[in-house]
Amino acid sequence: MSIISMDSVLLVDAIRKGTLTAVQVTTAFCKTAAIAHQINNCLHEIFFDQSLERATFLDDYYSKHTATIGPLHGLPVSLKDQFHVKGNDTTMGYVEWIGSNLGIKDPNEKHQVQSQIVSEFVGLGVVLYCKTSLPQTLLFGETKNNIISQTLNPNNQNLSCGGSSGGEGALQALRGSSLGLGTDIGGSVRIPAAFNGIFSLKPTPERISYREVANTNPGQNTYRSTVGFMSTSLGGLELALKSVLSTRPWLRDPAVVPIPFRQDIVDEYLSRADWDGTAKASGLALKLGVFWTDGVVTPQPPITRGLQMVVDAVRNAGHKRIAPVYAKQSSSQVSFLKADGANDIHAQLDLSGEPLIPDLAAAFRLKQPIGLLEYQDLTFQGLEYESQYSDYWNATAEEDGQIVDAVIMPVAPHAAVIPGKFYHTGMTLKSLNLFKYSAVVIPIAKADKNLNVFDDGYQPLNATDRLNWEAYDPEIYDGAPIGVQLVARKFEEEKIWAIAKIVHASLQKEQQKPKI
Amino acid sequence: MSIISMDSVLLVDAIRKGTLTAVQVTTAFCKTAAIAHQINNCLHEIFFDQSLERATFLDDYYSKHTATIGPLHGLPVSLKDQFHVKGNDTTMGYVEWIGSNLGIKDPNEKHQVQSQIVSEFVGLGVVLYCKTSLPQTLLFGETKNNIISQTLNPNNQNLSCGGSSGGEGALQALRGSSLGLGTDIGGSVRIPAAFNGIFSLKPTPERISYREVANTNPGQNTYRSTVGFMSTSLGGLELALKSVLSTRPWLRDPAVVPIPFRQDIVDEYLSRADWDGTAKASGLALKLGVFWTDGVVTPQPPITRGLQMVVDAVRNAGHKRIAPVYAKQSSSQVSFLKADGANDIHAQLDLSGEPLIPDLAAAFRLKQPIGLLEYQDLTFQGLEYESQYSDYWNATAEEDGQIVDAVIMPVAPHAAVIPGKFYHTGMTLKSLNLFKYSAVVIPIAKADKNLNVFDDGYQPLNATDRLNWEAYDPEIYDGAPIGVQLVARKFEEEKIWAIAKIVHASLQKEQQKPKI
Repeated sequence: MSIISMDSVLLVDAIRKGTLTAVQVTTAFCKTAAIAHQINNCLHEIFFDQSLERATFLDDYYSKHTATIGPLHGLPVSLKDQFHVKGNDTTMGYVEWIGSNLGIKDPNEKHQVQSQIVSEFVGLGVVLYCKTSLPQTLLFGETKNNIISQTLNPNNQNLSCGGSSGGEGALQALRGSSLGLGTDIGGSVRIPAAFNGIFSLKPTPERISYREVANTNPGQNTYRSTVGFMSTSLGGLELALKSVLSTRPWLRDPAVVPIPFRQDIVDEYLSRADWDGTAKASGLALKLGVFWTDGVVTPQPPITRGLQMVVDAVRNAGHKRIAPVYAKQSSSQVSFLKADGANDIHAQLDLSGEPLIPDLAAAFRLKQPIGLLEYQDLTFQGLEYESQYSDYWNATAEEDGQIVDAVIMPVAPHAAVIPGKFYHTGMTLKSLNLFKYSAVVIPIAKADKNLNVFDDGYQPLNATDRLNWEAYDPEIYDGAPIGVQLVARKFEEEKIWAIAKIVHASLQKEQQKPKI
Repeated sequence: MSIISMDSVLLVDAIRKGTLTAVQVTTAFCKTAAIAHQINNCLHEIFFDQSLERATFLDDYYSKHTATIGPLHGLPVSLKDQFHVKGNDTTMGYVEWIGSNLGIKDPNEKHQVQSQIVSEFVGLGVVLYCKTSLPQTLLFGETKNNIISQTLNPNNQNLSCGGSSGGEGALQALRGSSLGLGTDIGGSVRIPAAFNGIFSLKPTPERISYREVANTNPGQNTYRSTVGFMSTSLGGLELALKSVLSTRPWLRDPAVVPIPFRQDIVDEYLSRADWDGTAKASGLALKLGVFWTDGVVTPQPPITRGLQMVVDAVRNAGHKRIAPVYAKQSSSQVSFLKADGANDIHAQLDLSGEPLIPDLAAAFRLKQPIGLLEYQDLTFQGLEYESQYSDYWNATAEEDGQIVDAVIMPVAPHAAVIPGKFYHTGMTLKSLNLFKYSAVVIPIAKADKNLNVFDDGYQPLNATDRLNWEAYDPEIYDGAPIGVQLVARKFEEEKIWAIAKIVHASLQKEQQKPKI
């Protein structure tokens, strides 16, 4: 318990200082992961034997050289079952991928590939020990497939753990991991982070390597999925980003943009506030936009309270807030994900003849792909929309000369959702997500049936809003984690991390104030 | 003559020091451009009146403040007729675009738009005075359209000025401009630079802004066209890149990757050689790959001699050379450019009913677009191919631990081409170009009928190679400029510029050696 209660930064410190061994740490996380899986069905692959061998190797190295092999020496890192680890399966939730290479059962090809980012993490010193569950297709905000059935929320098994990096979120909620890799194209690290009360960083695509990571429809390159980090602490996210960028991934993956970790940006932002998040009198206070709603679906009471807590905390810490206009809804992102008529998905299903999970049967039934001219027209519209929103973001300086630093917004219109009731993914899939912005999710609080009461007088805006509103049940949601996302522009990972640090500190300060 | 013989760096220096005024410099370039156009038909739009007004404003500002408004204060800059300048036409070579906004003749929309990079250059202090000719469609290595007929090569009007930024190249060959903006998706700044004996820099797409620049099929975003610089000197290219990046274009164009000008990379590379290009005994010599041919079409004798001159110069300067394997031919880039079945091109032609120029009638006849699944499959193959070539590039270190810094290669299999005989664009359009690499073109020499003799015994490799080989005519090509491209990887603009500086210096040193 003393080991798994530590975060990634403390763990690598302890191993570097020799107060813990890699074998001790690995054993603790393997045991916890085993329990977590028995409670909560969150793992796909388990290779504890390999992890203990590796930890032994690392400890031997450390004894021999009195040095670590890298900044993540001995840290157990879990992986969404989309990342290839040499010698192990990657199923991505497809039955026929078991014991194969992307469904191809040639024994010579099986288990040969390793994702570049996995090799980078291994080079940095991590211990790999398990792969976490995900939904069939990856394109679902819950975690269900025909291999393990489903993973639920360890806080409350009446609720979903989110998706698609759902097993990762569930495992971390139970402290079976302090740092893991997920992927995100429309919310897939942000949603499970928020639903499980942990932290996540979703970089702009092409900041870190996606090379040799299994994916749905990998030829759809207009809106790319991105690798993201999930962690039990903000420190874990920074450690991961800084460490992986120190390996200069762009030298091995030409899709990665050569931007090293920019410590100066972190320092500049952190210098604007005291350690408790309070804006320095001498510095420039943060200016944060707040999206209470996307105007399509009004968040349920726990989310609105969560946003209010953040707004109160940053206001009390002396930072500026404005309420920007939410980006208009656009169906483009959804169109891109569905453009191929689910041909890639059905090609994978057809390998075994397994059916689509019922939740997705309507959304991803096999269709004709859209035409290329329509696809290119949507691409052009997307680029225009991105430019217009950039202009709008710049225009936030008109009032006082200061451009909005980041935007606070919901991850979903509800806390960890009741399975089957995730009606609106627009907050991570549409709007700002279309711009490939960088985002950090932080946990805020838990839903509370006494504080988050149902408003009988609410008039739904439309059919989806009605469904979402009526799905709010204070009793079931009681205790469900609430997270919010902080969003900055493209390639602003260091900046949004530093802002999250300040916002989180200001929230913690609020919680330490005596209640009146 | 004394003004137009100066390069961009000397010109901005002279204006900054007060030894020349912006009006003097502008007048000299306007007069020269006027003569160049009369000789060589290279301009589409002429707005000398606006330029003299602007120059007067800049001189007044300078007298009043004894300061310049920016690092390009007073420098006349020419533009390919694809860039929008408020108040002026952009035709992009289409008849019906005259007096309109992208062919739409609403008087309220006409002449309202200005390309972001044009505004950036204006903010940096330039004087705009003319827009240069280009081919209908942009997708042609010569310069022909139904508005001005064609632009030929001012060195020899039996030859082409290249394309698509052909008017720009021709104008600079006659010293009617020292710095201009072009665009390049498959060689469009590199070809005219090589054919006209000037310099060019083609950055990786998304390094500088393409926002609000007219384009062919702007929804084809898989292989994006990029803005490139053309200049009568290497110094002009660096000045342009450094200046435009100092404005932080990514803040206004979200497609631009936020990488500032990296002086440290320039300094690191330049520190490896003396001012005359000689490798320093104390430093790491450059390691350069040489592609003598792409294995499909063998360059004509002048190009092979040009490459030999570069190879001799860098060898004599103490740098390493290896002969890497050329990237396999791929038809992907061509497929992407033609994927829409020329629908966008025909939509523009249909505005007026003008025909395709005969040279393109076969290549761009209206067809059904390819299917989206095929398109996505090509995209996926392109990404794989890019990764494989990156691995190959890294593998050049196996021998001696040093990765190849850059590759020396032809721009085309001939010097400035005989019109109608540009049979093979693979050296700029296929292979390495697919990887979005950064490239600098430098002029090497001129074709010489005595040195570059026709080899009667040559056995053509295939039909295209035969066409190209038989098109070599020592008499006609005599005096045609020969340029080569130096190619580095993605986002390595500073590095490839510094390498070009070293290579060019070593070539100049060779030329100063007494001939034996």
